[in-house]
Amino acid sequence: MNIKGQHYHTIWIDSTEPSVVKVIDQRFLPFSFQILELRTIDDVYMAIRNMAVRGAPLIGVTAAFGIYLALQNSRDNGANQSITGIANKLKSARPTAVNLAMAIDRMLQSIKKSDLPDEQIRIALQTAIGLKNEELENSRKIGVYGLPLIENIANHKKDHKVNILTHCNAGWLACIDWGTATAPIYMAHNKGINLHVWVDETRPRNQGARLTAWELGEHKVPHTLIADNTGGQLMQERLVDMVIVGCDRMTPDGDFANKIGTYLKALAAKDNNIPFYVALPTTSIDRTLENAIQIPIEKRDPEEVLSVSGWYKDHPVDVRIAPDDTPALNYGFDITPARLVSGLITERGTCRAQKSDILKLFSSDGKME
Amino acid sequence: MNIKGQHYHTIWIDSTEPSVVKVIDQRFLPFSFQILELRTIDDVYMAIRNMAVRGAPLIGVTAAFGIYLALQNSRDNGANQSITGIANKLKSARPTAVNLAMAIDRMLQSIKKSDLPDEQIRIALQTAIGLKNEELENSRKIGVYGLPLIENIANHKKDHKVNILTHCNAGWLACIDWGTATAPIYMAHNKGINLHVWVDETRPRNQGARLTAWELGEHKVPHTLIADNTGGQLMQERLVDMVIVGCDRMTPDGDFANKIGTYLKALAAKDNNIPFYVALPTTSIDRTLENAIQIPIEKRDPEEVLSVSGWYKDHPVDVRIAPDDTPALNYGFDITPARLVSGLITERGTCRAQKSDILKLFSSDGKME
Repeated sequence: MNIKGQHYHTIWIDSTEPSVVKVIDQRFLPFSFQILELRTIDDVYMAIRNMAVRGAPLIGVTAAFGIYLALQNSRDNGANQSITGIANKLKSARPTAVNLAMAIDRMLQSIKKSDLPDEQIRIALQTAIGLKNEELENSRKIGVYGLPLIENIANHKKDHKVNILTHCNAGWLACIDWGTATAPIYMAHNKGINLHVWVDETRPRNQGARLTAWELGEHKVPHTLIADNTGGQLMQERLVDMVIVGCDRMTPDGDFANKIGTYLKALAAKDNNIPFYVALPTTSIDRTLENAIQIPIEKRDPEEVLSVSGWYKDHPVDVRIAPDDTPALNYGFDITPARLVSGLITERGTCRAQKSDILKLFSSDGKME
Repeated sequence: MNIKGQHYHTIWIDSTEPSVVKVIDQRFLPFSFQILELRTIDDVYMAIRNMAVRGAPLIGVTAAFGIYLALQNSRDNGANQSITGIANKLKSARPTAVNLAMAIDRMLQSIKKSDLPDEQIRIALQTAIGLKNEELENSRKIGVYGLPLIENIANHKKDHKVNILTHCNAGWLACIDWGTATAPIYMAHNKGINLHVWVDETRPRNQGARLTAWELGEHKVPHTLIADNTGGQLMQERLVDMVIVGCDRMTPDGDFANKIGTYLKALAAKDNNIPFYVALPTTSIDRTLENAIQIPIEKRDPEEVLSVSGWYKDHPVDVRIAPDDTPALNYGFDITPARLVSGLITERGTCRAQKSDILKLFSSDGKME
């Protein structure tokens, strides 16, 4: 997507510097647009851990490039770290999204094809680029499959205006391009459909306020920022026509982990009979799970709840919002049960959030076993 | 309740200065404890409007003292403002809570007993003090009636530990003393019941983080601050035994307005079969209402959503959390339907959230017609 008119992906390698992976540093958005250079596996681990890059699809791809960097450094600097050890540490950086582990496993699998360091590096780069292109294409197709859902609402409303609520940032910044939840929104907007997005600020890290509002603003998509508390009342007032959220990990039954607070919006949508869609690449579906209790819910630093990061006099500042000795708990994700979900929007099409439909997604082509 | 060991009410007049109403200025808590002196009706209007004082019971009592100040200034300075005009302006300061209008109307009614300015001032002061004492006693009784609900849960749990979730600040800072939602909590804590409170931070103004966490901390009540998004997941994990919230205005059917986000917690409590109580003085029940749609939902400055007020290097600072040109919507309240409420806790006893029970509250003694 575009930033000040220039097209960007969230991650790339410049051909002139093949040993440097570049990412948009999301910690300083929307106030400062900075590009972060990743040169080592530690750089990659920290970028994922401290959320310079975030979003299930993007952390998977970033980790894939991390394996490539690790192999390269291992050859050039004679570092003797086991690639399995590196992979395990990298997987632990963010435990909830399954894309991270899946991407790393695909990388490890791919480099088994050779014992030669140079060849492994070549394969690793090729595989990482392949994963990136796949996720890019996944997002685009999610847009293609999600678009008719928005069109359908527009066609059935007197004023043809569609109000969509989204939570956190499942935008192109969470992916390579297009986004997951935002892909149908961008496509509908590009097609001239009159739409407006309610953007949940998404405490504690405010990805909605900082990233989604910025993304939508850059693309001139009409939107309004709201406190996370507000969506329920807007739904009761019929000011929301549909909800689209992303997903960090889904069970084959359609229960899913997503940014903390998603469950509350799903309950409100159900209570008000408003369609609630989950947009996700099928890489976010973890078929090894028996139930959602098996999904590890990341607990992050309580400081993220006790303080708020923002901008003050042209500088990033963390302000304290609670007494000095207040304890806090910081869950990164919650579980939304499939019974609250109207449907899934994936790169393989839309379906109901139930096992039979979800498994059919995987058998619809030969790409995944 | 106590602040650093000293007992305070939220509003008082020192006998040495009868023309000054003193309030705890809640805008700087928990970082700075400041007492604000109100000398004119404009001081009172601004204190309510900018939320130096807030909470349905407290704004009612503050407005009552405002009428007293207005009469006094009118006599002393020969100001020729109509008391009805003053009253109407004051009512508009915060539209949602009914206590404000009710308290003002009671003041206007009481001063009709005399035409003499001195006598009106005397009656006004007496009536305002009477209202304050009533609200104080209301809170204490809410505690007495709510305590058995907590005791009952403690008795039925193996570890006898009760986890209570509350939203916003319906604490003693919102009242004169004890609070509404917190009154049963303080009484249970004082009685030695093992309890722990989940404190919703309550964006956009963070009254939970700033006020409730501080109150509970001053009284050594165990508590943990959470983002507003978190309560649903905690309920799914059975880490919440009950929810108690306050109320700004309730219909005779039991639907009620409370701080934005209350509805989402009520939905989650219902979905997880967790008791959800509303603690309120019957002064917050508006028997003139036919339905909750008639309750005006206050819309506040969008800036409260676009920025966060906090503390940075010993100073209050507002940090910006969204792009410069982002539009925002700031609802102060939402409506929670009675069907999601397990029961009401009032100064006249507990009851179900339904018309027959609620009307019985008013006929149980002769105080209200």
